[in-house]
Amino acid sequence: MKQKIKLLLDDTYPAKGSRSVAFFIQGLILLSLVAFSIETLPDLSENSIYWLQVIEFVCVILFTIEYVFRIYVADKKLKFIFSFFGIVDLLAILPFYLSFVVDLRSLRTLRFVRLFRVFKLVRYNRAIKHFTNAISIAKEEILLFLFVTVILIYLAAVGIYYFENAAQPNHFSSIFSSLWWAIVTLTTVGYGDIYPITAGGRVFTFFILLIGLGIVAIPTGIISSALTKTIDEKLPK
Amino acid sequence: MKQKIKLLLDDTYPAKGSRSVAFFIQGLILLSLVAFSIETLPDLSENSIYWLQVIEFVCVILFTIEYVFRIYVADKKLKFIFSFFGIVDLLAILPFYLSFVVDLRSLRTLRFVRLFRVFKLVRYNRAIKHFTNAISIAKEEILLFLFVTVILIYLAAVGIYYFENAAQPNHFSSIFSSLWWAIVTLTTVGYGDIYPITAGGRVFTFFILLIGLGIVAIPTGIISSALTKTIDEKLPK
Amino acid sequence: MKQKIKLLLDDTYPAKGSRSVAFFIQGLILLSLVAFSIETLPDLSENSIYWLQVIEFVCVILFTIEYVFRIYVADKKLKFIFSFFGIVDLLAILPFYLSFVVDLRSLRTLRFVRLFRVFKLVRYNRAIKHFTNAISIAKEEILLFLFVTVILIYLAAVGIYYFENAAQPNHFSSIFSSLWWAIVTLTTVGYGDIYPITAGGRVFTFFILLIGLGIVAIPTGIISSALTKTIDEKLPK
Amino acid sequence: MKQKIKLLLDDTYPAKGSRSVAFFIQGLILLSLVAFSIETLPDLSENSIYWLQVIEFVCVILFTIEYVFRIYVADKKLKFIFSFFGIVDLLAILPFYLSFVVDLRSLRTLRFVRLFRVFKLVRYNRAIKHFTNAISIAKEEILLFLFVTVILIYLAAVGIYYFENAAQPNHFSSIFSSLWWAIVTLTTVGYGDIYPITAGGRVFTFFILLIGLGIVAIPTGIISSALTKTIDEKLPK
Repeated sequence: MKQKIKLLLDDTYPAKGSRSVAFFIQGLILLSLVAFSIETLPDLSENSIYWLQVIEFVCVILFTIEYVFRIYVADKKLKFIFSFFGIVDLLAILPFYLSFVVDLRSLRTLRFVRLFRVFKLVRYNRAIKHFTNAISIAKEEILLFLFVTVILIYLAAVGIYYFENAAQPNHFSSIFSSLWWAIVTLTTVGYGDIYPITAGGRVFTFFILLIGLGIVAIPTGIISSALTKTIDEKLPK
Repeated sequence: MKQKIKLLLDDTYPAKGSRSVAFFIQGLILLSLVAFSIETLPDLSENSIYWLQVIEFVCVILFTIEYVFRIYVADKKLKFIFSFFGIVDLLAILPFYLSFVVDLRSLRTLRFVRLFRVFKLVRYNRAIKHFTNAISIAKEEILLFLFVTVILIYLAAVGIYYFENAAQPNHFSSIFSSLWWAIVTLTTVGYGDIYPITAGGRVFTFFILLIGLGIVAIPTGIISSALTKTIDEKLPK
Repeated sequence: MKQKIKLLLDDTYPAKGSRSVAFFIQGLILLSLVAFSIETLPDLSENSIYWLQVIEFVCVILFTIEYVFRIYVADKKLKFIFSFFGIVDLLAILPFYLSFVVDLRSLRTLRFVRLFRVFKLVRYNRAIKHFTNAISIAKEEILLFLFVTVILIYLAAVGIYYFENAAQPNHFSSIFSSLWWAIVTLTTVGYGDIYPITAGGRVFTFFILLIGLGIVAIPTGIISSALTKTIDEKLPK
Repeated sequence: MKQKIKLLLDDTYPAKGSRSVAFFIQGLILLSLVAFSIETLPDLSENSIYWLQVIEFVCVILFTIEYVFRIYVADKKLKFIFSFFGIVDLLAILPFYLSFVVDLRSLRTLRFVRLFRVFKLVRYNRAIKHFTNAISIAKEEILLFLFVTVILIYLAAVGIYYFENAAQPNHFSSIFSSLWWAIVTLTTVGYGDIYPITAGGRVFTFFILLIGLGIVAIPTGIISSALTKTIDEKLPK
């Protein structure tokens, strides 16, 4: 019996039952995420709120059953409970039960903890495992270049503050607002909420962009190439 | 006779006649697309509308003749009719004939079906064939990473909703509007219609950008590299 | 005598005199470009206009002397006159002389012809020669994918027109304004002058961005990689 | 004694003492940078300003001690003083001492000289050393293509000025404002403060983007690939 449930909960086991359970749980996760998203819409009707609560209730019950069964079939129960997936499974249902106990004030942050459900999907997605591998392979290089990127962004922020603060005291009010400009500009997002207007600031932006785009692209590039490597090695073509 | 028409309609046959027919049909497709685009201009004169209708009429007649001939020369007629190009050829002319029958209300969507003409061009462009090959080679990887991309965009949307909803209830009114922000930001388009203003939201944006740019670039990168491979293999240099 | 001038005008000849002449002409080109740029500033003082005209006058005289000498030293004079550099050298000075003859109305466009001077710099820059080589190597591939890019941009424009025209008749007034949106979005520039606001238009934008970024990047990528190849082959390291 | 201090100041020496000193100085640099950033916030309380001055005072004292010790332990004292790090160490403390002597007017620029402190971090970061190597390896190519990039940006600015000046005399008032547009557009930042509105200007932007994105990406790409090379060679995997 215990062995049967164990196989049913193992998505890598190629039996029809195991696959159905995996698909069912994934569908449930997606359903609860969609319900969560709809809940944030303003001006929901009474009726919609009622049905969203029903969906949430059903999802929590089913996730709880899954959690209990996973503990039941685990060989080392404590090890599972404190593993990444054990904690994620718990956090996915905890907010619901806590909401009966805790003061209403702190409920807002609690509601968002429910979203740890999304990490339950990691169990079923090989790409995310590749991603974790890639990060751990290139950890040292990523850290080194994140550091260079952060320094460059800081220097860009100080430079633009020097040039623009006098002309636009509202937009470039401190180095912290200038940091926001530096991030938005060097990633080429460019919202347009804040931009240099003085000649000095614009020439500075030009040089920072010519150098900076190359540097900011490096951590991103390292992650991409590490991922491509792990993908090439492990996926059959 | 049937053999002659078949060769004339085959653009890969290196005779002068076949080439002329191919060029003529391509020109006709472009003409009808330009006419379609001009039709959408507001405040067209009576005269212009008249000539656009004439062009449309002529194009449809010629496309119909082409379609009939293609069925005529096909060895397996039903197979051609239900092939990709058979359906595209039909959809390119169908709206015109349906407009005599169907109620005027549904005409707007019908008008756009005419645009399936653009896919008639696929017949003549080797690059698009390479593109289809590339997609089918890398299908599994693209799906895996599209899934990761969608999850990342969802998490970014939830995060920014958490930080910005209180400060900007109009812009970040729900997770759905936040999703729009996440898409526009992580692709670095950055329209500037919606952006974080709280310190928490900005710091969150910074981290999401550092990680996210690398991930969102992956499906795009896979398509690009698959395309480059098929190009290198099949095009003479 | 003729041989001496020929060597002086040949920037690849490693004598001190030839180098000085090359540097002098490059300096003159830059000076005349800067003068041209300053001329476009509104509200120039009488005095500035006077000095800008003096600089322009001196530059034209010296470019004319250069042009005459280059014809004088050319072995096949007609071939030089109708070569790329011969035409560029002529266009650099022609507007000045024509301004004595032609009606004032057409002067504006004439003024900009002076800018062909910038192409005189090509003579002295090896990178630009690499660029020309790269383009000619990858010509066929660039054309194929430019075509795909243009089709994709067109489809994106039609799609967004379909979704947004009713909601924003001023911004997405026709397929031509939608084309502008498609260009600005798929290159990720994202000015923010025009963007979708309907749910349908935003979902459509999401899918177009996921696919489109990969495709629009291809012609750009082909140019870059072709350049890198020619650079690697021809520059000593 | 002198030998002991020398080892303590050498962060590559693997003793516990040397590591502690290195960490302490890095922490001090970060602390003084954070203090500097907070100082730029408007509306600081009297109390905060007092504590920021205390932090600055302590940092300068400690940096001065470090500077004196570094001169003391250097074998060739003059060579150290005029080396990159010698000058950076001096500039990090000079503004503080100069502020007792110099007129208050020039203090603003002086305050920013303090930021040379950030370069003190270079001593401790291998990635920055890789960066310097990469630049010096690819120096010639970077210069060649920076030149091409600058010419392209100039041509884009002149072109858009020609098309847009009449329609938007405020935004495209001269070639210098058009240069700003060209920089912001070709790096795909796209703030949206200035963009073409005429049909001619938009078509021109389309072609400049198709060609330009490839070219502007080259110096950036050269820096990235040179960095990747130096990283691959020197970091253990």
